[in-house]
Amino acid sequence: MNKRSVTILGAGLVGSVLAVLLRKRGYEVTVYERRSDMRKESIGAGRSINLAMSNRGWKALELAGLRAEIEAIAIPMPGRFLHQEDGTSAFQAYGKNGEAIYSVSRGELNKKLMDLAEQSGAKIHFNQRCTKVDVQRNTVHLLNEQGQEREMACDLLFGADGAFSSLRTAMSFTDRTNFSQHYIEAGYKELNIPAGPGGSWLIEKNALHIWPRHNYMMIALPNIDGSFTCTLFFPFEGNPSFASIRTEEEIRDFFTRQFPDAVPLMPTLVEDFLHNPVSSLITTRIFPWKHQDKSCLIGDAAHAIVPFYGQGMNAGFEDCSTLEALMAEHGEDWTTILAEFEKQRKPNADAVADLALNNFIEMRDKVADPAFLERKKIEKELGRRYAGRFNSVYEMVSFSHTPYAYALHCTKAQDTLMSRIQAEGDFFTNIEQPAFCERLEAWLKEYEATV
Amino acid sequence: MNKRSVTILGAGLVGSVLAVLLRKRGYEVTVYERRSDMRKESIGAGRSINLAMSNRGWKALELAGLRAEIEAIAIPMPGRFLHQEDGTSAFQAYGKNGEAIYSVSRGELNKKLMDLAEQSGAKIHFNQRCTKVDVQRNTVHLLNEQGQEREMACDLLFGADGAFSSLRTAMSFTDRTNFSQHYIEAGYKELNIPAGPGGSWLIEKNALHIWPRHNYMMIALPNIDGSFTCTLFFPFEGNPSFASIRTEEEIRDFFTRQFPDAVPLMPTLVEDFLHNPVSSLITTRIFPWKHQDKSCLIGDAAHAIVPFYGQGMNAGFEDCSTLEALMAEHGEDWTTILAEFEKQRKPNADAVADLALNNFIEMRDKVADPAFLERKKIEKELGRRYAGRFNSVYEMVSFSHTPYAYALHCTKAQDTLMSRIQAEGDFFTNIEQPAFCERLEAWLKEYEATV
Repeated sequence: MNKRSVTILGAGLVGSVLAVLLRKRGYEVTVYERRSDMRKESIGAGRSINLAMSNRGWKALELAGLRAEIEAIAIPMPGRFLHQEDGTSAFQAYGKNGEAIYSVSRGELNKKLMDLAEQSGAKIHFNQRCTKVDVQRNTVHLLNEQGQEREMACDLLFGADGAFSSLRTAMSFTDRTNFSQHYIEAGYKELNIPAGPGGSWLIEKNALHIWPRHNYMMIALPNIDGSFTCTLFFPFEGNPSFASIRTEEEIRDFFTRQFPDAVPLMPTLVEDFLHNPVSSLITTRIFPWKHQDKSCLIGDAAHAIVPFYGQGMNAGFEDCSTLEALMAEHGEDWTTILAEFEKQRKPNADAVADLALNNFIEMRDKVADPAFLERKKIEKELGRRYAGRFNSVYEMVSFSHTPYAYALHCTKAQDTLMSRIQAEGDFFTNIEQPAFCERLEAWLKEYEATV
Repeated sequence: MNKRSVTILGAGLVGSVLAVLLRKRGYEVTVYERRSDMRKESIGAGRSINLAMSNRGWKALELAGLRAEIEAIAIPMPGRFLHQEDGTSAFQAYGKNGEAIYSVSRGELNKKLMDLAEQSGAKIHFNQRCTKVDVQRNTVHLLNEQGQEREMACDLLFGADGAFSSLRTAMSFTDRTNFSQHYIEAGYKELNIPAGPGGSWLIEKNALHIWPRHNYMMIALPNIDGSFTCTLFFPFEGNPSFASIRTEEEIRDFFTRQFPDAVPLMPTLVEDFLHNPVSSLITTRIFPWKHQDKSCLIGDAAHAIVPFYGQGMNAGFEDCSTLEALMAEHGEDWTTILAEFEKQRKPNADAVADLALNNFIEMRDKVADPAFLERKKIEKELGRRYAGRFNSVYEMVSFSHTPYAYALHCTKAQDTLMSRIQAEGDFFTNIEQPAFCERLEAWLKEYEATV
């Protein structure tokens, strides 16, 4: 049987990894990218979003053969650094064994993935805007910079074209395709903490910084050059909100009151706030993801999620790993590969979307609560003492390949277990008492029976 | 202040009523309709869908001045006529005072509404397909039969263009617009029971006939010419389903086993089944419904729902009544009118969508259960004895102008109340006992406190 020829819409992170994996299996791969080649232009300041890479992302990079190279430019963040309202601060480890998520520059990662895709033999065409997809005929309309539009027939088409995917839009007009898009009430604005003298980091380098403020928050991720990219997640309307904080004075007042420790580190705060755009935060769900054996969505195009679990790219990369495993299992049988792909990935995509939405509340609000911090400590200790029987949802999501759907499913049972434990008083004293351990054993058995 | 000039997309039921109401207030109204003028062509056999008009629908027709004329061609259906699996049948009244829903021909109703719209001074242009709407600039692109496309600027634009509205599609691409479309697992096919000798009705004329068969059902509504329009609501996949029943023999076998009383009345059953299309059933939700004071969705374009409560047209007509009341209240202040319109109607549109989805289960499944039939009798008796304190959800929806959101909200509390009552044994014996009446009084108080 002849190898099919593959067209990919989008040379972003997922499109590029997918191109590499398909080339490794000998498929001819052509990628059409809407933007110009980012390797030939400098990325404007204030637009360099960074990513939190965790285990699922690393796995796909390993399959693509890029893990070592990216590790060299990734900054481990083994925990959260909390900047509380009362001026105190606290570091809170993510994992029980010092596991970290990694701050990676989206731009640098994308450039290296494009290089790798081209080295492996994929052709990437830039400045090609896909204006329309005909799902039945499997054709794409591409508009170039000169305003010329052409219709191109595809053999096997992947839409890796992000949250506003044109393949997804076309599929959503197909009979019996379910689709939803939902925006949360908050948007975000990028801000900046520049590097200190000699490219030093002015706050803890190896941490994800959070300023939790109940219904909003600011976070900061370290960059390799000593700077931090800050993001303010903030309601669009209400008080305070992007609608209520408008003037230079309002900005200064608000930040000085709410983020007093950060303001001295943000010399361009007012300019950044006034000039950087406010972006919205969308969750999309669609089903089916594929049309026959002809076209398929992958990554954000199939499941755009909010960024609060740092799993958007990781989920997209896990799509790639799953597809790779299915190609290994089913050879050239793309009817089966695509059917199994959507069957395996759809419940997990829905689950990570929910996990991400829930985590906004955790990050902006609960994280500031002493009982929550205590819970996180207990979870890690439980995970150590009862290895193989208990693993926190956060650790499942970030440090394992446990299906997202299972992690989400465990959430409620873990809430029950942890409130029982915390209702008994200090866990670290209790755990030395045989009577408590017996009760704990019974609770754990109940937990295991539920999940 | 100058009256604004209004453009309406769609000369369907809602678009036509809206045109009449706007003309009555002196607005210049132009309507663009995708289809040709149905008054100049005969509607093909097997395509004449009928509607169940209930109180909300009649109110808008009254406002438009068309109630008497439509009543003359409407067939009252004061109850359901159940054709059970075991061959027995039963009539079940809808309301406690003989209230009816009315079978009306969609085509005839629409033709009369178009006439009225034109008589009131609205201009309707046919064969004008809206291919694109520019929400920001408030323009519509119209394609005529000759293949000529033109862009037209609008002053105030209404999208009354149905479940696949082009204004809604355009709005769904606007930042921070939430949207969902969801198809149920069942589709439908139209079938037919022709008139008997001399235009007589071969089954009970004044009823909505239901053949409930658990996960599917057939219904039949009377037409003025003695025929009945039957609709089979049936799963797309599984056994039995549209996928499993394909050949002439399979069709005959299936209907003879499942609908033995209907088959002798359906001489064209096999041909109808083989030739009529299978249609899907969509629910759509969007928010916002409007853009500034410039454009607004109404009817199915804002809230397409499944047909199981017979409320699709009624909800669209209630939109029109609400808009009429807002015009009366706010004069030319369209910023306020449109803001209030979506604020008042959105929760009710969401509620009627849920009520309609839930009613599929009720119609195809519960309706065949003796306990359910008993419950319906008790509800009506309760409504009589405790008038003003209890009204069944069905009666609120079909025979009142109570907001749909309130009706939906009452569902769970009525379920609780009714299971308490039914757990005590025969209601009509119990209700004569003072002790039971005291308990009932306490339950009713609890019900009233909840709703």
